[in-house]
Amino acid sequence: MLKNILDYETVDLDVESGELVIIDQTKLPTNIEIIRLKTAKEIWDAIYLLKVRGAPAIGVAAAMGLYVLALDHKDDDGVTFFEKLGKYRDYLNSARPTAVNLSWALSRMYRLAQSMKDEPVSSILDALRDEALAIKKEDIEVCRSIGEYGLSLVKPRDGILTHCNAGQLATCRYGTATAPIYLGHERGYDFKVYADETRPLLQGARLTAFELKSAGIDVTLICDNMSATVMKQGKINAVFVGCDRVAANGDTANKIGTSVVAAVAKYYNVPVYICAPTSTIDLDTLTGDQINIEQRPDSEVTEMWYKERMAPVGIKVYNPAFDVTDHSLISGIVTEYGIAYEPYTESLKRLKEQGR
Amino acid sequence: MLKNILDYETVDLDVESGELVIIDQTKLPTNIEIIRLKTAKEIWDAIYLLKVRGAPAIGVAAAMGLYVLALDHKDDDGVTFFEKLGKYRDYLNSARPTAVNLSWALSRMYRLAQSMKDEPVSSILDALRDEALAIKKEDIEVCRSIGEYGLSLVKPRDGILTHCNAGQLATCRYGTATAPIYLGHERGYDFKVYADETRPLLQGARLTAFELKSAGIDVTLICDNMSATVMKQGKINAVFVGCDRVAANGDTANKIGTSVVAAVAKYYNVPVYICAPTSTIDLDTLTGDQINIEQRPDSEVTEMWYKERMAPVGIKVYNPAFDVTDHSLISGIVTEYGIAYEPYTESLKRLKEQGR
Repeated sequence: MLKNILDYETVDLDVESGELVIIDQTKLPTNIEIIRLKTAKEIWDAIYLLKVRGAPAIGVAAAMGLYVLALDHKDDDGVTFFEKLGKYRDYLNSARPTAVNLSWALSRMYRLAQSMKDEPVSSILDALRDEALAIKKEDIEVCRSIGEYGLSLVKPRDGILTHCNAGQLATCRYGTATAPIYLGHERGYDFKVYADETRPLLQGARLTAFELKSAGIDVTLICDNMSATVMKQGKINAVFVGCDRVAANGDTANKIGTSVVAAVAKYYNVPVYICAPTSTIDLDTLTGDQINIEQRPDSEVTEMWYKERMAPVGIKVYNPAFDVTDHSLISGIVTEYGIAYEPYTESLKRLKEQGR
Repeated sequence: MLKNILDYETVDLDVESGELVIIDQTKLPTNIEIIRLKTAKEIWDAIYLLKVRGAPAIGVAAAMGLYVLALDHKDDDGVTFFEKLGKYRDYLNSARPTAVNLSWALSRMYRLAQSMKDEPVSSILDALRDEALAIKKEDIEVCRSIGEYGLSLVKPRDGILTHCNAGQLATCRYGTATAPIYLGHERGYDFKVYADETRPLLQGARLTAFELKSAGIDVTLICDNMSATVMKQGKINAVFVGCDRVAANGDTANKIGTSVVAAVAKYYNVPVYICAPTSTIDLDTLTGDQINIEQRPDSEVTEMWYKERMAPVGIKVYNPAFDVTDHSLISGIVTEYGIAYEPYTESLKRLKEQGR
């Protein structure tokens, strides 16, 4: 019998074989395919092509991936080893420019290695392996803690809207935006969840609807353009979404469409909560204007998933993968250390410092 | 060589053969298929399945369709003829509950027939044919007039966002929301148009992007969840959309997602104009709450167009075909007799009376 999707590890390290093991999320929900990655190109592609996606999961995959690639140089001298490690770090970091967790995890791994630079390569490798496993373990703890804080913001039987997938499939367990939903479900909260399908990559339909339904949660799929309708009908008590980068002033980059949901929620007086590990808070980015927004291929809008093209040949397409939600549209930013409220420049700094 | 899509009639009556002739819009943009309809089931299906769609085009198709069906009873006595005519009117009217033009056109045809009830059936049929052709001619004039008034609201080189297809393919010529764009294009206005793809039926990608591009207009396709991004970037000076029904207070039913665009536009201070023939103003509907919103099949969200299902089997789906935009989000309602502004209860009544 098929295992439940939630029984699989989103991202894992096979310590025996030295491989990065992930669920290929581009195949969901039709097929659950577990793939094993070993080369730099395979790992870069998995991140770029969204086989592994979600800021926290990307961070863990990058950390484990960097270790897997470093293993190939276990017999090299220290100078060569560090030269290669730096190259792999930069290469993997180029796969998704918006996700701050990617560079955060890669830097953390690289810094650890550098702190041991006079030790044997084999010891450095052992430490990198343990660090990658620790990053995964921390991700699970962080998500659970975000879930507890998030749960304090809602009541049993509330209606919750979420966009994209900031679920277990975007992390190692619980998810970020879904963590309050999963913890509430364990405690009989009986939420009514609405999942935006999230064009063009349909992470809401393919992933969020899939994983929440697998967990036995009451979830209804809607198109991205239906959020106003369910809010107007009073069906939504709170919006929970994840994020890829939080600027020092609280402006938040997340999957394209998040700022649409937030502006609509503002009009209908529905609170919007961003669920974010403190690792996604980037105090060096002062405002959302400084966030580099990844542009993706036209074909994702015109052709991908379809039997045949759905737009005329040669049509101009604008396809930003993310948008920035103004901090003024955000009711609170839920982290593993607590909830940041306005003024974000102060509250985020305080929470970020707790994480150091 | 393939004709330009704009060279085809969206809806036409073949007077010789007594057939309703339409472009099958479910096949666009890949195939331009012209279909000829003769039976009640064919005509009902064409409206229900959106082979012909857009409030004005539906009205014209229904009027012509009713005439085509009445032709089958040219040898019946008057009593039978009127009994059949009433049945066809009710049957066609059931195909799309939200579009007020459907019932408007059918009632107009039926009333005309009734005003001649003592005359020979052949004379009534001639009058019905002329009336259907007149409704089409009026639609073209109405759209052109909406275009002139709409054009007065924008400037050369403005960015215009539109949702769904209220274009030539939704009318007999010019469209409603696109009429200012087409007239501006004739006069070298050089607009930058952004077309929402409009899930789940993709009328924006398949129809609006297609017809505007065919006309040589600068049009960029975006997903419905990207409207906030282009507005934030200052790319949009005005939103023009069509509508299916305007209530007496200015609340407006239009394709699902219109109220999302309107709420986002409110936040970014972009004016939202509804382009509406006065035939879509329904003073008997006091507010949007009284508008019956058509619910459509789950499969439109989960399966339609795709190579394979994009959401888990058994997922709950909410798929309203329309939403109601609060009048407070609407900057003006552009009709063939002028532009209605707040308070709409007064301005709409005044414009509606001009149409009588």
